[in-house]
Amino acid sequence: MLFHCAMEVRLPPDMPKAEADDIKAREKAYAQDLMRKGKWPHIWRVAGRYANISIIEAADADELHAMLSSLPLFPYMDIEVTPLARHPSAI
Amino acid sequence: MLFHCAMEVRLPPDMPKAEADDIKAREKAYAQDLMRKGKWPHIWRVAGRYANISIIEAADADELHAMLSSLPLFPYMDIEVTPLARHPSAI
Amino acid sequence: MLFHCAMEVRLPPDMPKAEADDIKAREKAYAQDLMRKGKWPHIWRVAGRYANISIIEAADADELHAMLSSLPLFPYMDIEVTPLARHPSAI
Amino acid sequence: MLFHCAMEVRLPPDMPKAEADDIKAREKAYAQDLMRKGKWPHIWRVAGRYANISIIEAADADELHAMLSSLPLFPYMDIEVTPLARHPSAI
Amino acid sequence: MLFHCAMEVRLPPDMPKAEADDIKAREKAYAQDLMRKGKWPHIWRVAGRYANISIIEAADADELHAMLSSLPLFPYMDIEVTPLARHPSAI
Amino acid sequence: MLFHCAMEVRLPPDMPKAEADDIKAREKAYAQDLMRKGKWPHIWRVAGRYANISIIEAADADELHAMLSSLPLFPYMDIEVTPLARHPSAI
Amino acid sequence: MLFHCAMEVRLPPDMPKAEADDIKAREKAYAQDLMRKGKWPHIWRVAGRYANISIIEAADADELHAMLSSLPLFPYMDIEVTPLARHPSAI
Amino acid sequence: MLFHCAMEVRLPPDMPKAEADDIKAREKAYAQDLMRKGKWPHIWRVAGRYANISIIEAADADELHAMLSSLPLFPYMDIEVTPLARHPSAI
Amino acid sequence: MLFHCAMEVRLPPDMPKAEADDIKAREKAYAQDLMRKGKWPHIWRVAGRYANISIIEAADADELHAMLSSLPLFPYMDIEVTPLARHPSAI
Amino acid sequence: MLFHCAMEVRLPPDMPKAEADDIKAREKAYAQDLMRKGKWPHIWRVAGRYANISIIEAADADELHAMLSSLPLFPYMDIEVTPLARHPSAI
Repeated sequence: MLFHCAMEVRLPPDMPKAEADDIKAREKAYAQDLMRKGKWPHIWRVAGRYANISIIEAADADELHAMLSSLPLFPYMDIEVTPLARHPSAI
Repeated sequence: MLFHCAMEVRLPPDMPKAEADDIKAREKAYAQDLMRKGKWPHIWRVAGRYANISIIEAADADELHAMLSSLPLFPYMDIEVTPLARHPSAI
Repeated sequence: MLFHCAMEVRLPPDMPKAEADDIKAREKAYAQDLMRKGKWPHIWRVAGRYANISIIEAADADELHAMLSSLPLFPYMDIEVTPLARHPSAI
Repeated sequence: MLFHCAMEVRLPPDMPKAEADDIKAREKAYAQDLMRKGKWPHIWRVAGRYANISIIEAADADELHAMLSSLPLFPYMDIEVTPLARHPSAI
Repeated sequence: MLFHCAMEVRLPPDMPKAEADDIKAREKAYAQDLMRKGKWPHIWRVAGRYANISIIEAADADELHAMLSSLPLFPYMDIEVTPLARHPSAI
Repeated sequence: MLFHCAMEVRLPPDMPKAEADDIKAREKAYAQDLMRKGKWPHIWRVAGRYANISIIEAADADELHAMLSSLPLFPYMDIEVTPLARHPSAI
Repeated sequence: MLFHCAMEVRLPPDMPKAEADDIKAREKAYAQDLMRKGKWPHIWRVAGRYANISIIEAADADELHAMLSSLPLFPYMDIEVTPLARHPSAI
Repeated sequence: MLFHCAMEVRLPPDMPKAEADDIKAREKAYAQDLMRKGKWPHIWRVAGRYANISIIEAADADELHAMLSSLPLFPYMDIEVTPLARHPSAI
Repeated sequence: MLFHCAMEVRLPPDMPKAEADDIKAREKAYAQDLMRKGKWPHIWRVAGRYANISIIEAADADELHAMLSSLPLFPYMDIEVTPLARHPSAI
Repeated sequence: MLFHCAMEVRLPPDMPKAEADDIKAREKAYAQDLMRKGKWPHIWRVAGRYANISIIEAADADELHAMLSSLPLFPYMDIEVTPLARHPSAI
């Protein structure tokens, strides 16, 4: 099933740049791996914010939480999850 | 998987009593049918409110929404759904 | 560009069923026409609510507003629009 | 009686890993001890968050507060408590 | 145990005065009966609002909800319940 | 007159334990002195939180503020004050 | 003592104009009577809203509530009361 | 000076179309008259909502409130006003 | 014109006392200078909070912002400004 | 198209003045460059706050986000973006 995940990132402004760059690089690699596997079909940047809106495919909340809590940025994120159902008007 | 559903009921105060009683009776019958089938393992009354907190078992959001939107009280309810994962401390 | 539109529907509970059915039928036809044209690439039901999350493609806010304000359900909807940019991790 | 406890954990990102691991290990041991005693019948992870929803059995608010304030993670938690009553539809 | 109940009353402005007076009279009689029995030790008016803050004594949430949901004004009230524990500084 | 004071304490988690213990001891002594003088007739612990709900007797807001701002924990507290009037149903 | 009262008026749009005019005229007469007596030293219109911010002088919350609940517009108002103390910088 | 006015319109869905059309026509004429006089330099539609964001020029809050409260749609609007100062980076 | 300014002060608890005392002394001197000039006609302490409600007289938002942003405590304050108009019931 | 951007700045109070001055100088230069190019047609200071309301012209959310995320103050800002459409009453 699909989950709508609104993720807001709050890195401490005083985190050393090298550390932040490393976390972001690992985040990107991890996310793109999931995307290639079809588990993370959509990610969009929220304009003006260090935030994204993602659509994630997972069998259930256990698989979803395992994916999200493994994100290198997870300790710095606020994530709101909304379960999505098929819409009767969808074609 | 399990979904945490916080349901708040807002019946119009001027709904005729017979109509309200009928909806509530159908709601109860419908809910108890799901409970007997193991799809609605927990329901608690929020003290002081016409509201409940429920734990519902559904294969996915499609099945969950089909169940919830068939509730006779659905047009009068505000429902907030939270997907639940297994907790690592659960025994 | 893409817009994230969170739409919540609030039909008056006392609207005659025939009137509600007519609005919903026209809403569905209108929405599906936009979907077939590629202007409304995604729509999902928010589980447990008479609400949807949609991704809409429009040249700009003028075109977006023209589409949304023509929805038969528009007078009964609360819509929150978030402009979406490409995410650097998107593949 | 039962209490619905929504617990959100906010560990400082710069807490040394050894210290965090120690607190979490003690938290888990403490919680599982209460679970085995039947005082903490349910705990679920809120998908995507370092948070849980728990159902706790306590004679009254004094016993509940004694349990919660003894949690090793208590100084880092935001807990919202909702008292639960039996629901008339419960079977 | 004690429960802190914040009650806000929202009577429809167009309710006939006789009906409102009747509900209020029954509310007062019912409340004072509970007060005389020691179940409702404190009630204060929130200055400037049709609202009160009450401290109610009940064995548990079941007894509390039975009391509150029997209030003649219950269908017109929004009630927030907070469970109270003994404070270590209380004398 | 009476004031309803909802107090939430937010001690920095990294405050040295000796310092925290000292502040709490002075807070308790100060509060109990006011209680013995009849100025602080009620204090309850909000279950699950480092917070209390208090009823304080003061001639006016000047006296109230003098009392509250002298609390040793005042710099770490968020206090919401609600003025209370006699309720017409009170006995 | 002084109370800061933020008052928001919500007259039903379909109230007959004569009825609304009558309530407003009585409201004005009542308010100005209190102003002349020195009980309502300040009233300002919140620009752009059918709302006001008032400073009211009352011996205590009982007198304040008696004044406010006697306002002809009281059933249509949402009033937030904040108790005011003397500021140490006031001259 | 300039005021930022965020206006949200909430016409009752059951208002007869002729009445709504008349109010909207008078609103448009009134607004455009102010625009031609330079008092209402900017108005934008908030995409997806029956709402606008306006920049209004007025000598002070008295003139602003006189303008806003004369809007034919004023009884159906929720308006939030923010006073604007010159920004040091403005050119 | 008049502006309603709700100011909340949030000094870091670990600011050295001498530094805090110095800022507060300069704040008081600065504020009282404006009061003597008639630019700051009212200031009240919000009971129970390190906060005040002030009424400030300024020709426009530019003058207001110049005054407020020069407050020694400005970097530690959260200020909400509401423009005030004359109320038709004011005498 | 136009975007309404509400920007709130939260510089850490303990940032060295030289560092803050440098960021602000670069912010001003960057912003004025965009203003001269016609991409940032309006910026106003929100009176009483370290905040601004800006109207920004961008082809789409990608261009907008590129501009905003390049602001030297971006890591210290909270930005809310609202897409603007032409208003039918605009002249």
